[in-house]
Amino acid sequence: MVAPQKFTEFIDSNADRFIDRLGEAIAIPSISGDASRREDVVKMAVWLEAQLNEYGVKTEKIPLGQQQLEGKTLDLPPAILGRIGNDPKKKTILIYGHFDVQPANKNDGWNTEPFTMHYEKDTGKIFGRGSTDDKGPILGWLNVLDAHSTLGLDLPVNLRFCFEGMEESGSEGLDDLIASEAAKGQQGWFDGVDAVCISDNYWLNTRTPCLTYGLRGIAYYQITLSGPGSDLHSGIYGGAVYEPMTALIALMSKLVTQDGHILIPGVYDGIKPADSEELKKYEELDYSIDDLEGAAGGKIANSSERITVLMGRMRNPSLSLHGIEGAFSGVGCKTVIPAKISGKFSLRLVPPQTPEDITKKVVAYVKSEFAKLNTRLNLEVEYMHGGKPWVADINHWNFEAAKKATEAVYLQTPNYTREGGSIPVTLTFADNLGVNVLLLPMGRADDGAHSTNEKLDVSNFIKGSKLLGTYLYEVAEITQSA
Amino acid sequence: MVAPQKFTEFIDSNADRFIDRLGEAIAIPSISGDASRREDVVKMAVWLEAQLNEYGVKTEKIPLGQQQLEGKTLDLPPAILGRIGNDPKKKTILIYGHFDVQPANKNDGWNTEPFTMHYEKDTGKIFGRGSTDDKGPILGWLNVLDAHSTLGLDLPVNLRFCFEGMEESGSEGLDDLIASEAAKGQQGWFDGVDAVCISDNYWLNTRTPCLTYGLRGIAYYQITLSGPGSDLHSGIYGGAVYEPMTALIALMSKLVTQDGHILIPGVYDGIKPADSEELKKYEELDYSIDDLEGAAGGKIANSSERITVLMGRMRNPSLSLHGIEGAFSGVGCKTVIPAKISGKFSLRLVPPQTPEDITKKVVAYVKSEFAKLNTRLNLEVEYMHGGKPWVADINHWNFEAAKKATEAVYLQTPNYTREGGSIPVTLTFADNLGVNVLLLPMGRADDGAHSTNEKLDVSNFIKGSKLLGTYLYEVAEITQSA
Repeated sequence: MVAPQKFTEFIDSNADRFIDRLGEAIAIPSISGDASRREDVVKMAVWLEAQLNEYGVKTEKIPLGQQQLEGKTLDLPPAILGRIGNDPKKKTILIYGHFDVQPANKNDGWNTEPFTMHYEKDTGKIFGRGSTDDKGPILGWLNVLDAHSTLGLDLPVNLRFCFEGMEESGSEGLDDLIASEAAKGQQGWFDGVDAVCISDNYWLNTRTPCLTYGLRGIAYYQITLSGPGSDLHSGIYGGAVYEPMTALIALMSKLVTQDGHILIPGVYDGIKPADSEELKKYEELDYSIDDLEGAAGGKIANSSERITVLMGRMRNPSLSLHGIEGAFSGVGCKTVIPAKISGKFSLRLVPPQTPEDITKKVVAYVKSEFAKLNTRLNLEVEYMHGGKPWVADINHWNFEAAKKATEAVYLQTPNYTREGGSIPVTLTFADNLGVNVLLLPMGRADDGAHSTNEKLDVSNFIKGSKLLGTYLYEVAEITQSA
Repeated sequence: MVAPQKFTEFIDSNADRFIDRLGEAIAIPSISGDASRREDVVKMAVWLEAQLNEYGVKTEKIPLGQQQLEGKTLDLPPAILGRIGNDPKKKTILIYGHFDVQPANKNDGWNTEPFTMHYEKDTGKIFGRGSTDDKGPILGWLNVLDAHSTLGLDLPVNLRFCFEGMEESGSEGLDDLIASEAAKGQQGWFDGVDAVCISDNYWLNTRTPCLTYGLRGIAYYQITLSGPGSDLHSGIYGGAVYEPMTALIALMSKLVTQDGHILIPGVYDGIKPADSEELKKYEELDYSIDDLEGAAGGKIANSSERITVLMGRMRNPSLSLHGIEGAFSGVGCKTVIPAKISGKFSLRLVPPQTPEDITKKVVAYVKSEFAKLNTRLNLEVEYMHGGKPWVADINHWNFEAAKKATEAVYLQTPNYTREGGSIPVTLTFADNLGVNVLLLPMGRADDGAHSTNEKLDVSNFIKGSKLLGTYLYEVAEITQSA
């Protein structure tokens, strides 16, 4: 290990104080989606900025404008941009995190008050809203700064910080801020950034640390079928008219097979099969079909081949049918012929798929299949929203450093994972700064982010703090020796 | 015409009084589905019974027990059973009608107060809730009784009456009453009934009187697919698991073609093709594809052959897909893999189809198609409710009499129609009494029963009253000469 022993010892010996500090952060109910809690999000920003300043980080709270929420015009909570270190011989790492949280109420099913930290010593679990998403990881960085400041140690790299308070509510204003700071180059807060590190996702399981190097994109569609002027009675019209539901169901049935093969022509164009190196990464993943089915709550894996299932989840495109708007959706029976209905589905994308290209193929295919149905109904195909997929180069020093740090702290080789869902800020940093982005999670798969009884294992918090610091030393080590 | 001229003249010369009486009936808001109006349904029963008694009809208000409505235990409104005439040389006709109505509020879109009759003299329309459904037809019978009582004319047939106050709320209690009265034979209120006449449906158009001799049955199903323990995120699980929606959509797509052909094996077994006599009835129908499409609000007829469309609506089975419970049904986008979803569909049945037989075929087919999908999901197929189809013999004297009466009063040959939907009491009478049942509508297709601005054309009310009386004379004439 290249991190100094006194750093890791400091983290261990100050664990109780760090846990108390996490309790302070959890106690501020910084729910970005609740207008009545906006003051608390701002309070959390002030609290975090003060901590950063105490350890020598220069900061600025950047206003992000206003939003409409629950009929009110509210100031968006500020983002905090920060800087420590300006040594041209050192690499510069940009750290991202968010200090807002999801809503939580005790009577949603929490065993304890969500905004009062509950440290269960016998299980080693720290319960509380935000414990793992994303206050724990942010405080991991504070712990690293605290150790270096208190011990009088120089940081091995220059650090830049970007902390936001709107992640759980669509990161409003953040894309523009990142773009404008990136455009400022050496005059901006992101001057000299060589790589980005984000701790805002989770291990694949409860056992093995991981590095995340890919995210699937998304393209969401709505197919609307119409014909009658209003909903019709199936007794009176059934058998005499073309029914929008019959046509919609036929179209939706032609999008994907039961085992997940997408039927839209050209949708797989350009997707490279996994090479032996990539296949090896999946072989090495500490994740079984039982793990997946346990998390899903049912024996529903679409293959008995572990690697097929893992690749289906992480690196292959997928298509899911979500539902129908405008049809009968209640309990019981209604003999309606719905007049106008919209089927919703989305594709998860992987490189080189883009929402633009996939949209052309979806629209052409749905229209051509609709023509074959030969009805007198009307069709509309709409692209609703989307985002590009992202895959990072895991041979970059940024990932190499994280791997070595993981091995040093956890004595385990990390899993290399790709997330099936999206973390949009990842792509914003990659696109605007043109540097390698590393997702370095702190928490475990069962932490319950967004759910009741959210927790962070104390070992993840303390080892995770060591991991973040050690990662910085490994960055310095690798890039100096290179 | 065999009806005495002084009968028809009496109807004409008392038209204003009859319209006023309809106004009295409309003014009692006898909404069976509204607990706060239950007293008004009872008031309407009392009003109707008094009218019947005034014209010599012996009656009894039969209690039907209690129901739960809006959290209250309420007495069901009584049915009124009645009898006039006991001449063994005359035929005995049972008349059915209902004195309850659908809810109505002015601000639903009514131009006038729904429970204040509005007689628009220049258009000849009588507006008000219940005007056509079903107070107008009931009062048509009162007009016939009034004429005979006032003129001192003997009725040409014996009459029995069955009027209920729960038709718009599922006819609670009525089936049991009809069965028990039928079982009493000569000791019951339905003693000696030779045929039934029901005025509670509508012409096929606005121009041509009709006799209705068939109703389609129904069999309603729910297919439930499940697998995951709870709703899943499509980013995390899409591509790795079998998805209930994909399987449900595949199953729903295999039930019916776009032009309405049902794909369930054996579903058409035993249905006779229309013979030349029946085809002629469709040829004679005064109803165009434009009429159908005008009413449906869209150019959606599933054939350019008028007779094909009409037979699709009236005499062939059909299958409609109604919707999905448990999937995303809101506006906008949600990236959910729904865990448990129920697809709803129903078949309209024609003789000799029965819900029991069709259910066997549906369950077997859906299970076999599900097995072919080869997923690891769970399937449940449920029969939700149903009712048998009904077709009457139009060569029976009951229909012959109605035809002659129509020709005498309207100077038009009636259309012979079958309704696509169900009027359950029809089958209850047919099954329990074993006699011919005639549906003899008074109102037009555009009367707006159940809708806003419900109306009855005054010509339909007055000519309709003549039609009902004349029908009784024709019954007597035909059956005496036979």
